[in-house]
Amino acid sequence: MTEPLRLGIAGLGTVGVGVVKIVRQKARLLNARAGRPIEIVAVSARTRDKDRGVNLSHYDWEDDPVKLATRDDVDVFVELMGGSDGPAKAATEAALAAGKHVVTANKAMLAIHGQALAEAAEEAGRLIRFEAAVAGGIPVIKALTEGLAGNEITRVMGVMNGTCNYILTRMQSAGLTYEEAFSEADGLGYLEADPELDVGGIDAGHKLAILSSIAFGTQVNFAGVELEGIGAITIEDIRQAADMGYRIKLLGVAQMTGRGLEQRMSPCLVPAASPLGQLEGGTNMVVLEGDEVGQIVLRGAGAGEGPTASAVMGDVMDIARGLSLPTFGIPASALSEAHPAQGTVPAPYYMRMTLEDRPGALAKVAKVLGEAGISINRMRQYDHDEPTAPVLIVTHATQRAALDTALDAMATLSEVQGTPVALRIEKV
Amino acid sequence: MTEPLRLGIAGLGTVGVGVVKIVRQKARLLNARAGRPIEIVAVSARTRDKDRGVNLSHYDWEDDPVKLATRDDVDVFVELMGGSDGPAKAATEAALAAGKHVVTANKAMLAIHGQALAEAAEEAGRLIRFEAAVAGGIPVIKALTEGLAGNEITRVMGVMNGTCNYILTRMQSAGLTYEEAFSEADGLGYLEADPELDVGGIDAGHKLAILSSIAFGTQVNFAGVELEGIGAITIEDIRQAADMGYRIKLLGVAQMTGRGLEQRMSPCLVPAASPLGQLEGGTNMVVLEGDEVGQIVLRGAGAGEGPTASAVMGDVMDIARGLSLPTFGIPASALSEAHPAQGTVPAPYYMRMTLEDRPGALAKVAKVLGEAGISINRMRQYDHDEPTAPVLIVTHATQRAALDTALDAMATLSEVQGTPVALRIEKV
Repeated sequence: MTEPLRLGIAGLGTVGVGVVKIVRQKARLLNARAGRPIEIVAVSARTRDKDRGVNLSHYDWEDDPVKLATRDDVDVFVELMGGSDGPAKAATEAALAAGKHVVTANKAMLAIHGQALAEAAEEAGRLIRFEAAVAGGIPVIKALTEGLAGNEITRVMGVMNGTCNYILTRMQSAGLTYEEAFSEADGLGYLEADPELDVGGIDAGHKLAILSSIAFGTQVNFAGVELEGIGAITIEDIRQAADMGYRIKLLGVAQMTGRGLEQRMSPCLVPAASPLGQLEGGTNMVVLEGDEVGQIVLRGAGAGEGPTASAVMGDVMDIARGLSLPTFGIPASALSEAHPAQGTVPAPYYMRMTLEDRPGALAKVAKVLGEAGISINRMRQYDHDEPTAPVLIVTHATQRAALDTALDAMATLSEVQGTPVALRIEKV
Repeated sequence: MTEPLRLGIAGLGTVGVGVVKIVRQKARLLNARAGRPIEIVAVSARTRDKDRGVNLSHYDWEDDPVKLATRDDVDVFVELMGGSDGPAKAATEAALAAGKHVVTANKAMLAIHGQALAEAAEEAGRLIRFEAAVAGGIPVIKALTEGLAGNEITRVMGVMNGTCNYILTRMQSAGLTYEEAFSEADGLGYLEADPELDVGGIDAGHKLAILSSIAFGTQVNFAGVELEGIGAITIEDIRQAADMGYRIKLLGVAQMTGRGLEQRMSPCLVPAASPLGQLEGGTNMVVLEGDEVGQIVLRGAGAGEGPTASAVMGDVMDIARGLSLPTFGIPASALSEAHPAQGTVPAPYYMRMTLEDRPGALAKVAKVLGEAGISINRMRQYDHDEPTAPVLIVTHATQRAALDTALDAMATLSEVQGTPVALRIEKV
């Protein structure tokens, strides 16, 4: 295998440019490692005339990514355009149909069309690789699919949206409100054009759905991810959590239970002293748990030119070296349907609410919890000047359904002001 | 590729038994993931009649591991005997010569004979895989060789001997002396038959030499690893380090410098708040730094039946899936000679010494440091009742050679009692 591996790259944003730079600047190293040269033959992007800080004149230009993807002289179609549908999907499908391998960083496309694309890849006898789609530069897809291939995976967890973790960390460390931290992240260019993709947990939810499929041998099912964003987290929650030895993280958790596949992406409390609790700023962390290996923790940059391009190149090098692997670890036809779990594994919950300061208010709340079968581990009422009292409750492990029953009942109590906050305390 | 992959396993200690259990108990899962069955055809160990808690009656027994390794019906020789030479090496060489792939957990053999074995493997057109040889269940060989294949590796660090980290953690958390913590680890069965392999840094040094080779494309050179064990660390050092916000770890560091390949395995101070500083007990951590990806941190169990067997099975699955890869990431003939660096990258050092409490003693020490070109960042003399005074010095970044000059000069001072402790403060 000394013939070159020829790439066609569609999408020349930060990541695409990063990949071009690596292929140009590290040609000798890549050749030594792959046993063959890695070459770019053609590129494509929306705008041709734009200074991208890298010389593209050696490569053919294609305005149409589908045309790029199906060129006779392309072995691997590198899809870095993004978007779950549209040109990215059309070009990916065309590439596979034309017998090309595909390397992509497109989490949305895989989370939504992963099963169909995996089937198309297998029909064509080609690979789709997507290390860059999950947790940026961290080689987590490889660790899960290959390194832990001798394990039954028991749980996958992750902080996989750097922007959310940045916002929560700034609230924690600088005492900013959610709105202030959000604005700061926005000013730094950390937010997606639609910020809800970040703070609503959608982007991280896409990543979790992809990991779940590999971990549990199920068809990727983003619709089955319970999504809750970080928009309701207040500085008060951050402080109370810290006071009890916890941090609040937008945490993804996937596990196969007797009641189906549980996939959650939601703000959770984790111990401040745990690796997840100690994760600050834009860094990502993924925790893989296997029945043999125990807990493996992977930490690294979740975004940015270098880290994401590094992940893309890892996939390109695998293909150059002849790796052969089904998209989600087992053949697409063997992936079982993912039945979303009814209810989640019981856990303790953190609750914060505002009560009118009158006799019996706390008793009524306690009664509601008791009637829902929820027992209280800790309760605090804080010193206050206003006629309302902030109250904090930590429950013993309970079903989420019981908690929802209690929250519904609280909504009918005139003593409870606004909507109580309820956050899961995850055992990590 | 639906024909089975047939294993011959030599060595039925904890890890060998763990591998047998996985192959037996997860046959369906492994088949789905590999696209073909994984089967054991024969096993070998020193003693046949021993209850190992697993049924071996379905497999042929070979007294001679070389015979096992060369059986016609074996595709992969799984070497789990250990020892750098002797039967392990003989059987590995025989396996390659007979056209078998080899999976091994043998760090000593690879650290010492890695180059010759890699050459033999390439001549035979077969693979040697050794994920289990470094950091137990953490898929670090895979991350480095494959996941980060698009990076120039700039530095590799690791806490890779769980026993040493256990001893240091117990000194830190329980206030035990080195001797007490050592005895405790011994009582728990954590120490090798020759404890110097652990506390002398040899075992961890083997692992570092293997990682270096992959990271920098050099022939594995264990002799080039600067080794320093943890035996001289006192509870006093642990406390002083903690007081300044550091932890002491037996830390491996490898980096390519303008002066050659630097490989060190020695007790170092690292910030208490860093991932390495927070690593407690027997857990392992490897930090990989690449020019594109930045810093990747991997954490997990470094030993034990399940984790090590998980790593062995990851390699077996790779072979079953048709992976092809040079032993150390590039062809053995292309690995360059590893020239050990003359001197190390400058760093600040922590020093602790005992001075006779008489006028001018401290001044003499300060003068010696100044004459060696070492400037002092912090200095403390502690309150004391005895006629001697404990003194602590943290230097600014300095060459190790300058420090050695100063230490030599101090040895001639009558005011300095015993030998000063000097530990590097590593930037992590």
